[in-house]
Amino acid sequence: MGKYLPTRQVPAIELEKAHQIPKGWIAKHSGVEYRHYANEAETCAYMGARALEEALQKAELVFEDLDLIVCASGSFDYPIPHRACWIPKEMGKLEAGIPCFDIDSTCLSFITALDVVSSLLDGKRYRRIAIVSSEIASKSLNYKDWESSSLLGDGAAAAIVALPNDGDSSAVLNANMQTFSKGVAHTIVRAGGNIAHGRDKSIVDEAFTFDMRGRELLRLVMQITPPFVKNLFEPLDFEVKDLDLCIPHQASKAGLKMGQRLLRLKENQFFSHLETHGNCIAASIPMALYDAIEAKRIVRGDKVLLIGTGAGLSIGGVVLEY
Amino acid sequence: MGKYLPTRQVPAIELEKAHQIPKGWIAKHSGVEYRHYANEAETCAYMGARALEEALQKAELVFEDLDLIVCASGSFDYPIPHRACWIPKEMGKLEAGIPCFDIDSTCLSFITALDVVSSLLDGKRYRRIAIVSSEIASKSLNYKDWESSSLLGDGAAAAIVALPNDGDSSAVLNANMQTFSKGVAHTIVRAGGNIAHGRDKSIVDEAFTFDMRGRELLRLVMQITPPFVKNLFEPLDFEVKDLDLCIPHQASKAGLKMGQRLLRLKENQFFSHLETHGNCIAASIPMALYDAIEAKRIVRGDKVLLIGTGAGLSIGGVVLEY
Repeated sequence: MGKYLPTRQVPAIELEKAHQIPKGWIAKHSGVEYRHYANEAETCAYMGARALEEALQKAELVFEDLDLIVCASGSFDYPIPHRACWIPKEMGKLEAGIPCFDIDSTCLSFITALDVVSSLLDGKRYRRIAIVSSEIASKSLNYKDWESSSLLGDGAAAAIVALPNDGDSSAVLNANMQTFSKGVAHTIVRAGGNIAHGRDKSIVDEAFTFDMRGRELLRLVMQITPPFVKNLFEPLDFEVKDLDLCIPHQASKAGLKMGQRLLRLKENQFFSHLETHGNCIAASIPMALYDAIEAKRIVRGDKVLLIGTGAGLSIGGVVLEY
Repeated sequence: MGKYLPTRQVPAIELEKAHQIPKGWIAKHSGVEYRHYANEAETCAYMGARALEEALQKAELVFEDLDLIVCASGSFDYPIPHRACWIPKEMGKLEAGIPCFDIDSTCLSFITALDVVSSLLDGKRYRRIAIVSSEIASKSLNYKDWESSSLLGDGAAAAIVALPNDGDSSAVLNANMQTFSKGVAHTIVRAGGNIAHGRDKSIVDEAFTFDMRGRELLRLVMQITPPFVKNLFEPLDFEVKDLDLCIPHQASKAGLKMGQRLLRLKENQFFSHLETHGNCIAASIPMALYDAIEAKRIVRGDKVLLIGTGAGLSIGGVVLEY
């Protein structure tokens, strides 16, 4: 895996000063001590390419070893073309011919992509697949909404997914996803698509920003999570309590707290870096997975759950042996 | 399959009058006699849902029979959440729980989605998968650029992909995709993402519209198509000339002409409805497939090639037995 964080770290105090937020409010309510904001040069493609370069280096592979590049993100540099084709461009691989497409389930994009590409790996057409999640949330923040604007951050991570070597038992053990459209507008950016087009100068600024209804989200998540998790573990020969580590989407302080409680996991079974990263949309789960691996909170053979909810509203999970 | 066309038909003469284009220019250069433009009620989700309803009806299925809904489009109603979760909403299925995610390779999205979901079908987790391609190009046209603005149109199509019944030999026989990032900016919408954000009121209107470099595109497509097609047919026991029908992306009049010539296909082996639909981004291929099936130009057992190039620049193809 590889990871890229924007060079600019933005502490809570800076946001509190700039946006007339009471001192200490962010630490208390959003729980994010600092997050990172991309500068003009740090585009989604730039950050994703740097993360992929690290992932390739760690896997002792070169770009040309890849059979597919999947971008798995919610935000994007350009409406057209899609995200993934900018990665070879950023890496100077203009004529590589490696197929590039996007998988988008907003915050869950990395989970969905991992689930899908693990089904594609056949050792022939696909032997090594790169997933790149690279997100810029900072340009779509509404600072009148303290909760979401102090929560979201930018960042990128990449993973190389391959068939295990002989004797290696790494595998996706089970995966699932469910979408409940009654929550489709609980997290939304209203303008920028065909409904409220960017060229229409009469559209108010707030319409281009994240609108998150925290309470409605939590209520729906609380309702759908237990049956989803029960179903996810049903075919497995171990239970949630036997997990070595759960890596949840870094949705929010309240969301993480509720998730840990719903899954009945101990502190050391539940990973969070919300305090130092914020919620980086689809990049949160792979960045947290990267950090957990680097900190040796996960070692080969461990049973790991990646789980999250995302705009849609969807819930997704992958149980894997690392 | 199902299809939805916006109720408003826009003939060439209407565009010529409205945008000071010389009379007869569009027929001669873009070859599109009329195209369809969505009205305010005809969103991507609305059109996609109507197409999916027809597909379900033709397949004698109900919504709840689906195991997955994949939206495969280049344009979108909202930047967040992703496209597919709006389909159950539009169909009044708010609590269905059917997973919904997007696959985006711009114009090739339907081909990529068909390729991917045919690998996912396992008769257990996935028995019936819906692919929905629904596009609105009309809101992103630059009428100063006669070529692209007279070429693009709106529309939607949906397909239900399932394992064949006993004795039925329908199958994806081979599929492939290649991306050449040296053409990444040959088809582009520059503004509306993180690079040039919609909330920045100083961005010029043209930046939010399609910018297509026709000549550069054709040159690159001409170069990459022959080896791609050779490779695609290499493992098969028949050749391009044995195809019952080729359904190309309805890229442009010149693109279609070149495609037919490069593939050396006879008139009756090559499908086009460009004159009456224009180029509808990713919806073009499935809408053309729908029309070919309805017109009985394809019957069960036929060998069919879906092929196209899309922004990225990518080339993709699926060889199937219908």
